[in-house]
Amino acid sequence: MEVKRILVVGLGLIGGSMAMALQGFDGCEVVGGVRSQRTHDKAVERRVADRVTFHPEEELPGADVVILCQDPAGIIAFLQDNRDRFKPGSLVIDVCGVKTAITEAAKCLPEGVDFIGCHPMAGKEVSGIDNAEGSLFRNTHFIITPGEHSSEEHIALLYRMAEYCRFGDVTRTTPERHDELIAYTSQLMHVIAVSVCDGDDFFSCQGFEGGSFRDCTRVASLDVPMWTQLFTLNAPALAKTVEALEGRLREYRAAIESNDREKLAAMLESAAGRKKQVNLERARGDDVRPRF
Amino acid sequence: MEVKRILVVGLGLIGGSMAMALQGFDGCEVVGGVRSQRTHDKAVERRVADRVTFHPEEELPGADVVILCQDPAGIIAFLQDNRDRFKPGSLVIDVCGVKTAITEAAKCLPEGVDFIGCHPMAGKEVSGIDNAEGSLFRNTHFIITPGEHSSEEHIALLYRMAEYCRFGDVTRTTPERHDELIAYTSQLMHVIAVSVCDGDDFFSCQGFEGGSFRDCTRVASLDVPMWTQLFTLNAPALAKTVEALEGRLREYRAAIESNDREKLAAMLESAAGRKKQVNLERARGDDVRPRF
Repeated sequence: MEVKRILVVGLGLIGGSMAMALQGFDGCEVVGGVRSQRTHDKAVERRVADRVTFHPEEELPGADVVILCQDPAGIIAFLQDNRDRFKPGSLVIDVCGVKTAITEAAKCLPEGVDFIGCHPMAGKEVSGIDNAEGSLFRNTHFIITPGEHSSEEHIALLYRMAEYCRFGDVTRTTPERHDELIAYTSQLMHVIAVSVCDGDDFFSCQGFEGGSFRDCTRVASLDVPMWTQLFTLNAPALAKTVEALEGRLREYRAAIESNDREKLAAMLESAAGRKKQVNLERARGDDVRPRF
Repeated sequence: MEVKRILVVGLGLIGGSMAMALQGFDGCEVVGGVRSQRTHDKAVERRVADRVTFHPEEELPGADVVILCQDPAGIIAFLQDNRDRFKPGSLVIDVCGVKTAITEAAKCLPEGVDFIGCHPMAGKEVSGIDNAEGSLFRNTHFIITPGEHSSEEHIALLYRMAEYCRFGDVTRTTPERHDELIAYTSQLMHVIAVSVCDGDDFFSCQGFEGGSFRDCTRVASLDVPMWTQLFTLNAPALAKTVEALEGRLREYRAAIESNDREKLAAMLESAAGRKKQVNLERARGDDVRPRF
């Protein structure tokens, strides 16, 4: 499939980084769509895209690939507002953290416009175009959730784009399974981080933190509107994984309170063993999913 | 206080790093005590100490500073077995992760031998002398828990040693407060990490992890016998902080399940604000504790 123009809508941390990473791909033009003057000026100054516009919707008829990089509500509104402007045969993807709700919303697109929900597992604890960088995706995972309608040509194009952006690998799954796993691997980590920061001793523990505390709480300084949307749009799966964690914490607490050293040691041995096994598999590259 | 000989008992990750970091301090000799032939040979090969011995107890009468770097049970046994061998006027410290139990055990020492429980907030997810390095403590916290009996001279010596090891700062507190705060900042992080690794999807989530998952689970590959001891010796404080976290997770889950976006946003705003405030204070150096 020949790609002459890629339109990236929203030049925040992910969109800005995506536009930068894709520059030069297949020799095509990368156009960035922005809303604020500040982001516009920064994008021009940092050469984030070949061209920057306040009116991305006007670029839709000429865009072979559209990458929606707004927050979930912004993506859903953009799809609904512009459903008839997309180029027939074009590939439309999004990069936000929930896939079922977005894939559902994308059903408003006319036949012939192929929507595939995607999720780059990259990020920072800071947001916005100032923190965007073309190397953000290097060695991270790229998740794609093609549907039955998705053409092999478009899927192959996504793999090529992912490789160009230097993702470490591509994982193909369904929107539903994505949301279930991401509730555990990403959203739960953010719920843990904010829950730890809500602790009574959070302000008095300076001088007592080691690497584990800094690592676990790093993502607590989150983008509140965006994460409120992500949590709400994936509420059942997230609530289930939080509840399961509560149960496992309760089990460790019971073992600690019971003073049953043998039981506690067995539990820790099992968990540490699981972690070491995964570390080992990944170090060896025992990864059976398709890479490039 | 003149220091001619420092004895480091146990050359694992922390002890080995401590011996390396202290080499050349005040021009004194650093002697390392080991149990296994393998650690002995590695210590000699890596020049971890000026001298390595299988019989650290024989060095006690000539040691001005003794640094106990075994696991908690090993420290307690060493204190009890060798209580009469320590040099009068010497400073004895330990570097393990609980302080009340160790300080209690150190009461067996004769008057004139000054025990001060210490805790370097440094570590790695791997252990042993192979992973020891003299730069391990750079910019980490050093916690000291002197008692009423501790001489100002010995406390000043600890500050000098901490500065020599390039710790970022020294925090002075009581053994009880140390254990309460460390339950929250360190032990809880390890309970969280193992609880996350016990998740049903742990082995099936490859391709879905981002930085937050790697960071949060990093310490799960823990040294089981040591952490079993640390958790057991601090059981009441740890159980309390785990239970408090369970409660906060339940509150977030309730907000997520209720679909009350405003409430969830307010909770996230508060937690993210707390984290940002602490990040800001630390970046500005608004740290009121004594540094060097």
